Amino acid sequence: MYGMVLARYKIAPEVKTSGMFGMRPLVLFTSDESHYSFVKAANWLGLGSYNCVSVRTNERGQMLLDDLEAKIAEAKARGGEPFFVNCTAGTTVLGAFDDINGAADVTERHGLWLHVDACLGGAALLSAKNRSLIAGLERANSFSWNPHKTIGAPLQCSLFLTRESGRLLERCNSTEAHYLFQQDKFYDVSYDTGNKSVQCGRKIDAFKFWLMLKARGYGKYGLMVDHAIHIARLLEGKLRQRGDRFRLVIPEHEYSNVCFWFIPKAMRVSSEEETPEWWSRLYTVAPKIKEQMAHSGTLMIGYSPLKAKNLGNFFRMVFTCFPILKSKELDFILDEIERLGEKIVL
Amino acid sequence: MYGMVLARYKIAPEVKTSGMFGMRPLVLFTSDESHYSFVKAANWLGLGSYNCVSVRTNERGQMLLDDLEAKIAEAKARGGEPFFVNCTAGTTVLGAFDDINGAADVTERHGLWLHVDACLGGAALLSAKNRSLIAGLERANSFSWNPHKTIGAPLQCSLFLTRESGRLLERCNSTEAHYLFQQDKFYDVSYDTGNKSVQCGRKIDAFKFWLMLKARGYGKYGLMVDHAIHIARLLEGKLRQRGDRFRLVIPEHEYSNVCFWFIPKAMRVSSEEETPEWWSRLYTVAPKIKEQMAHSGTLMIGYSPLKAKNLGNFFRMVFTCFPILKSKELDFILDEIERLGEKIVL
Repeated sequence: MYGMVLARYKIAPEVKTSGMFGMRPLVLFTSDESHYSFVKAANWLGLGSYNCVSVRTNERGQMLLDDLEAKIAEAKARGGEPFFVNCTAGTTVLGAFDDINGAADVTERHGLWLHVDACLGGAALLSAKNRSLIAGLERANSFSWNPHKTIGAPLQCSLFLTRESGRLLERCNSTEAHYLFQQDKFYDVSYDTGNKSVQCGRKIDAFKFWLMLKARGYGKYGLMVDHAIHIARLLEGKLRQRGDRFRLVIPEHEYSNVCFWFIPKAMRVSSEEETPEWWSRLYTVAPKIKEQMAHSGTLMIGYSPLKAKNLGNFFRMVFTCFPILKSKELDFILDEIERLGEKIVL
Repeated sequence: MYGMVLARYKIAPEVKTSGMFGMRPLVLFTSDESHYSFVKAANWLGLGSYNCVSVRTNERGQMLLDDLEAKIAEAKARGGEPFFVNCTAGTTVLGAFDDINGAADVTERHGLWLHVDACLGGAALLSAKNRSLIAGLERANSFSWNPHKTIGAPLQCSLFLTRESGRLLERCNSTEAHYLFQQDKFYDVSYDTGNKSVQCGRKIDAFKFWLMLKARGYGKYGLMVDHAIHIARLLEGKLRQRGDRFRLVIPEHEYSNVCFWFIPKAMRVSSEEETPEWWSRLYTVAPKIKEQMAHSGTLMIGYSPLKAKNLGNFFRMVFTCFPILKSKELDFILDEIERLGEKIVL
């Protein structure tokens, strides 16, 4: 929302400053596997949900740049004014990273604001080994990152950075509420955030992140991020080793997400018997196993469908810096899914 | 923002559901002493800051209903569509309570959404003695309250209630993000908030408030609110007793706010010598004393101007349930302001 509000203010400051009714027909673009908050923001900000245009993705979950170009042309053809493109660095479900450099070529050509939603995958910035996942970030107009995700800052802790100059955040958001944000203080007020943010009373969430970096340093967190990604790849290997009992949703994930199905004994059939009915039944397996997990108290693993790919429920494990998992704990997880999974009634 | 988004969705659901560009020329109304968040919300939600119309207030800081009627008529005359009126129950600076019943007569007549911003004054609801300050609240469509204010819940803890039926919050805010808010769980998902709120990852802030009420009960907090208001009246009495060294901004406040000037010896003159220059100089006193407070570490009291009344800086003390102050601590506060106030260079 911050990125969208800034982008809108930059090209259409009249929403803040003039007495006119209505708004220019602004249109934004984000992939069909990106976070729901873009649709929600389009609704809240009065752009209209419909003007949050969904761009198709490839098999790995990355935004298709050809489709982005096509959707921009379509929006213009129906009278819209494209203004904002979001790239996701770490999609919620598959952990996919969009091609930021490719998207930046498009946004620079069309004069659009480029935002990078690195809420999940921003932690890769800490890692020398995995930083290349977010190559091109320096070309974005703004980016967001939640250290409360991969590196485990206490909820909530979100960064929003913009490389726009000219105090855009302040000009966009200030309401000149001098009864709360006094300018006549005896010290430098330029770091005061009240005039720059949408919230009023809030905690100093940034302090948690600052303290974490002071305590462990970038390098240590980078190694922990690398370990989380390593463990994800290790789980993929173990899933493959277990043969027809498990199946990966995509062959290899890019980040610390691993998405997979468990196939109970009663459902293990040859591939030609995998009818639409068989798949529908498979989509009920993960919720039923999760119910068993909740009752037995041994595991807590989320499940998810993937609407953009017309896929129903599968397990979605996302590894983070804490706890630091070992190989044998992955075996326990898979053993336990098998144990609970053979108990369920289909 | 929640109240405004719901009110907008109720009369203009097309922002969420249709492919149209633009928005109906919606206009909202709130007093010139209300919180800045209404202007900010009008900007963020794309209504336009200008369409957040400022209604004049009386000497005590209460919204003038005649002016509200006049402003509604003016908005219609310029082609606007009034949709939302805010009443403040406890303004930020003076702690004034708008006449909710009077405003409800207006909004019911015009078919507008009535919101009550009780963020500061909502704590009066806990008090048998002071509850009448918020008389008429039951006629509002929505109301908000921050228990992190008067009763001292840890930041942040905000209530938003609406008496609208038909799952309006969910219909307005849902994005059908089934990859995060699964509907096929084995328990009742109607209390899940993900589909109803704008935020995604967040703490269970409601739990803090629930625990506070379990620990002390409504009645105990009510008595503590009464004490905070009592202490405010006591301070007003002490300020009057100190003669020409202090001056109240208004004769009596309604809530636990007390606004006052300290007049240093060098500025104590007869009333006919209180020129505009004298007042301008007086407005620099509170910031200078606050600087002395910061250096000496004995007190921390905010100051504020009141733009709606063309007044410059004065001290603004707002008493809360914690700490539980006694009369002699008020004497210390006033003695200390005098001690520091005679040191400043004008």
